[in-house]
Amino acid sequence: RAPFPGAGSNIALRWVDRVLRGTGQVVFQGNWLTGLFILVAIGINSRVYLVAALVGVVASTGTALLLRMDRGLVDAGLCGFNGVLLGIGLNAYLSQDFTAGQWPDALLYVYIVVGAAMTTVMLAAISSLLGSRKVPALTAPFVFTAWMFIFATLQFGDFHPGPLLQAILPSHLIATEPVTIETWYEGTFKGIAEIFFQDNALSGIVIVIGIALNSRVSALMGLLGSLSGVAVALLYGASETPVALGLYGFNAALTAMALGGVFFVLNRMGALYTLFGTLVTVWAWATMSVLLSPLGMPTFTSAFVIVGWFFILAKAGFLGVVPIDPADSTY
Amino acid sequence: RAPFPGAGSNIALRWVDRVLRGTGQVVFQGNWLTGLFILVAIGINSRVYLVAALVGVVASTGTALLLRMDRGLVDAGLCGFNGVLLGIGLNAYLSQDFTAGQWPDALLYVYIVVGAAMTTVMLAAISSLLGSRKVPALTAPFVFTAWMFIFATLQFGDFHPGPLLQAILPSHLIATEPVTIETWYEGTFKGIAEIFFQDNALSGIVIVIGIALNSRVSALMGLLGSLSGVAVALLYGASETPVALGLYGFNAALTAMALGGVFFVLNRMGALYTLFGTLVTVWAWATMSVLLSPLGMPTFTSAFVIVGWFFILAKAGFLGVVPIDPADSTY
Amino acid sequence: RAPFPGAGSNIALRWVDRVLRGTGQVVFQGNWLTGLFILVAIGINSRVYLVAALVGVVASTGTALLLRMDRGLVDAGLCGFNGVLLGIGLNAYLSQDFTAGQWPDALLYVYIVVGAAMTTVMLAAISSLLGSRKVPALTAPFVFTAWMFIFATLQFGDFHPGPLLQAILPSHLIATEPVTIETWYEGTFKGIAEIFFQDNALSGIVIVIGIALNSRVSALMGLLGSLSGVAVALLYGASETPVALGLYGFNAALTAMALGGVFFVLNRMGALYTLFGTLVTVWAWATMSVLLSPLGMPTFTSAFVIVGWFFILAKAGFLGVVPIDPADSTY
Repeated sequence: RAPFPGAGSNIALRWVDRVLRGTGQVVFQGNWLTGLFILVAIGINSRVYLVAALVGVVASTGTALLLRMDRGLVDAGLCGFNGVLLGIGLNAYLSQDFTAGQWPDALLYVYIVVGAAMTTVMLAAISSLLGSRKVPALTAPFVFTAWMFIFATLQFGDFHPGPLLQAILPSHLIATEPVTIETWYEGTFKGIAEIFFQDNALSGIVIVIGIALNSRVSALMGLLGSLSGVAVALLYGASETPVALGLYGFNAALTAMALGGVFFVLNRMGALYTLFGTLVTVWAWATMSVLLSPLGMPTFTSAFVIVGWFFILAKAGFLGVVPIDPADSTY
Repeated sequence: RAPFPGAGSNIALRWVDRVLRGTGQVVFQGNWLTGLFILVAIGINSRVYLVAALVGVVASTGTALLLRMDRGLVDAGLCGFNGVLLGIGLNAYLSQDFTAGQWPDALLYVYIVVGAAMTTVMLAAISSLLGSRKVPALTAPFVFTAWMFIFATLQFGDFHPGPLLQAILPSHLIATEPVTIETWYEGTFKGIAEIFFQDNALSGIVIVIGIALNSRVSALMGLLGSLSGVAVALLYGASETPVALGLYGFNAALTAMALGGVFFVLNRMGALYTLFGTLVTVWAWATMSVLLSPLGMPTFTSAFVIVGWFFILAKAGFLGVVPIDPADSTY
Repeated sequence: RAPFPGAGSNIALRWVDRVLRGTGQVVFQGNWLTGLFILVAIGINSRVYLVAALVGVVASTGTALLLRMDRGLVDAGLCGFNGVLLGIGLNAYLSQDFTAGQWPDALLYVYIVVGAAMTTVMLAAISSLLGSRKVPALTAPFVFTAWMFIFATLQFGDFHPGPLLQAILPSHLIATEPVTIETWYEGTFKGIAEIFFQDNALSGIVIVIGIALNSRVSALMGLLGSLSGVAVALLYGASETPVALGLYGFNAALTAMALGGVFFVLNRMGALYTLFGTLVTVWAWATMSVLLSPLGMPTFTSAFVIVGWFFILAKAGFLGVVPIDPADSTY
């Protein structure tokens, strides 16, 4: 995709291009316009998170330049998207109000900057492990770093872990809240917004538009993935609250986008394979949230990473699906 | 081994061959007769589980054909044995009565079918990771899929997790129950039967006979492995109840069969290596059951998978043992 | 480095060389003199642990010889250092008094011997996985084996798990104890001693001297790493007790030694990379200790292993740092 106007000759504009493109790469779109829409979507929900996203993308991309990673990767935004998520994620779970966020103090900003830098190390490390099999790192650098950093906050008096970081022993949930048409609408669009930790349906709509400007297939896949999360959860009797918050959808949306058109050709078998992976992701998210509950820790996009890796790794054994080399995918 | 009579020319009989052979492969025997004995052993304990096993093996094998995996693997039953275990496993832990099982409703059958299909994706993925080192996936596709799917059941009102899925904080157990000769007998044969989730010593005996029809060495190794589990557990002061249920033995039996004659030549050093791995498996099972207790989740054959992988991977560094290439093993 | 006098011609002295060198390799020093200082440091704190260390190093090295691992690795002490840690570790956590230790009974010695042997299998297995990327196993064989074996002790009446093996749900800690100059001094030197489970500042000093006899850079890095653990923990408001016990420092010390001069050239960027990794290790240790608290299980050197692996694996993607091939490092 064409770079941001003037990015070829001006170093400041080249950074604007990297920041926007890095933001867009969270949803597999190496397009500065998509990134711009996403930042707007975040900003209309919370300026705190907008700043956190920018700090994250600059720190992770800067680390990649400092340690001299491949310049092509850096300029494509591929060293920045995990930093975006890490920045917002750490900030959100260390805020008393998850939805609006809370301004970090200096020590927390240091923590976010080092964490974002760590996503770059993890990216290089995971690429070294999986690259020879042409399997991308996905958002694993963000998930692993976030886990590595979030658990620690309970040990430090300077941090103020938010109300969502509560440890409980899991037990069987029985759904009782009534399901309305709003559950479907809110759940689907918040499912897109929650990819970026935004508890805001309008943000979800703006992000979908941003994706569609680069790829209508990806936008459609993202929506269908998020919708599948809502549908499967309700069919199997999940509680209404997490469904309406989009929690069943944000991993499924990423899997649907990744398998449907980015890493596999979207022919008939590819569509079936995407549906299959999306379904498994919904259940895998439910599992991860139970698995982590005794620790009080968030699932992040771990379900997408795990299922995505299995389905992409499996391409080596299946002649029935047509893989797209990460280097050739639009992403 | 010779295929089921008529399997070469008749597609229905070819499916019978795949189903039986796939069942036999759980215990490393690519022989339809072994598979038949195992299905009989399951059926005499519970018709519910017999159906679950058949659904699992057909769904996983069918997925492999649909996605066009290597036909040789499919016909050898290697794409079916994880499905057998997944089918019975999900059914058993979602039954109020673990021993007899409970007929699934339609949504649970969908869950089992998708889960069994997922074992095929995991098989292809894990083979892509480990195949170049000539390390087999073992029952890891089953274990990982079962974990991925079982944890989720706590989130869905449609599912009815059984009494064994209870989360508790681990603490030190003190054994008090008296040990009798029955503990030894029941523990050893149920250790074989528990590979297939059957709490039934007679089933264990039938399975051993079925294995012996294909390989007397494997049958002997399985028995010795299960017996080792009982012996080590009692020597170190474990509670009598899990010992008599065969829980200390079912992972050890698999390790003993795998290392003793299937993946390593059973010469003197091979026997010592098998004993070593079997011993470690007994302790590793005890560890896994503690590790997973705060989640209320079953260990399945995870101890066998972990120990088996380490001992098989290690062949690259040891000149003292003689490995058998998975492709050349009787399995 | 020169072998122990007479080790070339006398088999008993060759074993002395292997034992001492294996002990030194825990801190990356293939030097019998370093090993001797470490054993003295352990012995002045507890004869129980001195014996456990010797049992561990002999059992793991003996297993490597029996299974015919590469003789060069064995003679360099690389098959022994995980055994040293496993021996002391199992003994310490199964003692009512962690600091002084408690003599094991016969069954616990068997357990330690088999565990130490298992570290050799894990070493061969992990080397098979990571060796082609020129990434060393670090102390992962010890950490994984110790986890695999320690959790099991709760199941067996013969074992007497110590008071540190208590499961609790994590919650946010608030620091209240006063910090004094002793916190800094004790924390830094105990941080070195805790690598070997010794709660003794004098032992830490003796170990630093032993390291300096082989490499002044490593000794300095170890001290700075341990000091960083104290500094970061106090800056972020950690409780004084674990800081003064050296718990924030022992993983950081290992990371600092590994990245600073052993696996990377210690130029300006190498120093920055080392600082970065050390900082992340401090937080990662805090995370691991929360993560494992519902299981009541120790972190061991897991934070070092995880961070070390990521930073070493990442060398494939970074032109800005200069890696040292494990085979060429002084280690």
